[in-house]
Amino acid sequence: MSGYTIKDIAKECGVGVSTVSRALNNHPDINKETKKRIMEVVEARKFSPSTTARDLKRIRSNTIAVLVKGLDNPLFHKMMDIFQLEIESKKYDFVFQRVGAKDDEISVALDMIKERKLKGIIFLGGNFTHSEEQLETISVPFVLATISPGKNVNTDIYSSVSVDDVKESYKITDYLCSIGHKRIAILLPDNGDESVGSLRLEGYKQALSKHGITVEEQLIRYSVDEGDSFSMENGYKLMRQLLSEDIYFTGVFAASDKIAVGAMKALLEAGKKIPEDVSVCGFDGLDIARYYHPTITTIVQPIDDMAGRVITQLFSLIEETEANSQITFEGKLLVGESTGPV
Amino acid sequence: MSGYTIKDIAKECGVGVSTVSRALNNHPDINKETKKRIMEVVEARKFSPSTTARDLKRIRSNTIAVLVKGLDNPLFHKMMDIFQLEIESKKYDFVFQRVGAKDDEISVALDMIKERKLKGIIFLGGNFTHSEEQLETISVPFVLATISPGKNVNTDIYSSVSVDDVKESYKITDYLCSIGHKRIAILLPDNGDESVGSLRLEGYKQALSKHGITVEEQLIRYSVDEGDSFSMENGYKLMRQLLSEDIYFTGVFAASDKIAVGAMKALLEAGKKIPEDVSVCGFDGLDIARYYHPTITTIVQPIDDMAGRVITQLFSLIEETEANSQITFEGKLLVGESTGPV
Repeated sequence: MSGYTIKDIAKECGVGVSTVSRALNNHPDINKETKKRIMEVVEARKFSPSTTARDLKRIRSNTIAVLVKGLDNPLFHKMMDIFQLEIESKKYDFVFQRVGAKDDEISVALDMIKERKLKGIIFLGGNFTHSEEQLETISVPFVLATISPGKNVNTDIYSSVSVDDVKESYKITDYLCSIGHKRIAILLPDNGDESVGSLRLEGYKQALSKHGITVEEQLIRYSVDEGDSFSMENGYKLMRQLLSEDIYFTGVFAASDKIAVGAMKALLEAGKKIPEDVSVCGFDGLDIARYYHPTITTIVQPIDDMAGRVITQLFSLIEETEANSQITFEGKLLVGESTGPV
Repeated sequence: MSGYTIKDIAKECGVGVSTVSRALNNHPDINKETKKRIMEVVEARKFSPSTTARDLKRIRSNTIAVLVKGLDNPLFHKMMDIFQLEIESKKYDFVFQRVGAKDDEISVALDMIKERKLKGIIFLGGNFTHSEEQLETISVPFVLATISPGKNVNTDIYSSVSVDDVKESYKITDYLCSIGHKRIAILLPDNGDESVGSLRLEGYKQALSKHGITVEEQLIRYSVDEGDSFSMENGYKLMRQLLSEDIYFTGVFAASDKIAVGAMKALLEAGKKIPEDVSVCGFDGLDIARYYHPTITTIVQPIDDMAGRVITQLFSLIEETEANSQITFEGKLLVGESTGPV
């Protein structure tokens, strides 16, 4: 019905414009009876919110929040550039929120939804072990970027865009095995089940198993420091420790490029040749993998494509043109100068 | 006067509580006569806003915004951790806003002040050529972190916490000269006057001059690429270009550690030995300076102390216990393996 505005709906129902808005936006904070009455009028008048976008804009928030856990991950900066550009080109506001390493991103999200009436949320990084109950408390469309919850979570209730960490770690460990390495150390951020490190360990184990190599606990190393466990410093310390124990290994799979850099520095300092004495792989495809000397063999995450897909998915959810889905991207094995045959 | 609240002031003046709050907070949006009347009552009653903090809290915003330009600078992540911790420990809210490379941080700040009624602002990174007129439009206390406007700006109207880029660049170039280098290339982010690069170039020139070395334009190189001009990629490209031109140099001062990494990769790839053939310095003191092979001689910015000082200064301004001031920290020359005598 042309010319029929949200104000008319409000008047006809005897409620305020903001109440109509709440009904149209499925806001939880509205009396069920009132909502029913409003929606009946909306139906009867063939009122379409999209025809009165300008009216609605004044009273509803057009804000999308990006909650970032692990701000020091350079991959995230590139993704955020794309998020901001895309969100603003769609005339939405962009809000950016850091989540501390020990903070729960879902609690932060719930607070923001309450305060800022968000239209959508992107969770960038963080843990992936949120339960169904936790995910269901999020009342607005959201996409998990670079992470995905465990297999047990109902896939109807969330969207995600990520690589398959198990598969990609399998790929790079399999590569090391295929060029003759049998004694491969793995350097992990921490030994928590909630970290992406546990998935990368799983891929490592699967690859060894395929090649008939026994997993040895002494070759599995976890960062023990607080703070950024994916850091160069942790890689350096882990490798120094490993070298001091006089354990034989010819290959190293570091769970991130930064860990790989620290490990390589410790090896080079100790007079080891890379890759002649030890081959080293990283994970992520950061700039430093290309500019370290030697360059670092790594898994490149297709960050640009992933960021674009996150936006497409989020807006499909907001516009209700698509249901939740889980999108997995393929990483690319980039062989650098840091690996070679045994 | 104990028990006397902001409500009592409002009642006595015949205005609303929010008007009293505006008067107390020096908000520009208040009639001068009204403000005068309110402040007279405040004086007469010896009313202290601090005694009714709880009353005020309900009606005024307690938010401090951190506006960051150059999110991919790892130094900023450490500073932001400290900002968030300190701001939250003072029971203020923390809002974090990215500013795009081409966006004007002052416009962004003015929008935020309007929308969110900020208590204070920290500008982290960005340009330093804002005019007095621009800085004066900011109606809440603010501190420029890691940057400082030009010498011509009235020092009463802003606070800043930074290193002296000219002096620190002088220091590291002077070091290169002191170990015998006379032909020193400088790799800069861009040739804009608004960049910190121009200050680092100035320090380089002063050091050469002190050592009686003529500045040669062919040894001054600017990144030409769009995007992150402090990147490893730009350092790599600049060095490849320099090597292709067959210009003689024995030293390189890169305006950031990332540029230094790229330049070193190009040198090492070309078969040059560092520091035997070429000595290379960076600037910033990033982790990668310690974990590159060879380690990189650099200027370490005392990030933790600087971040703490930013907070102290901002709260002194908010609580009106101190006036604006400019605080300069001393950088530290850290000699790594990348430099040696000619």
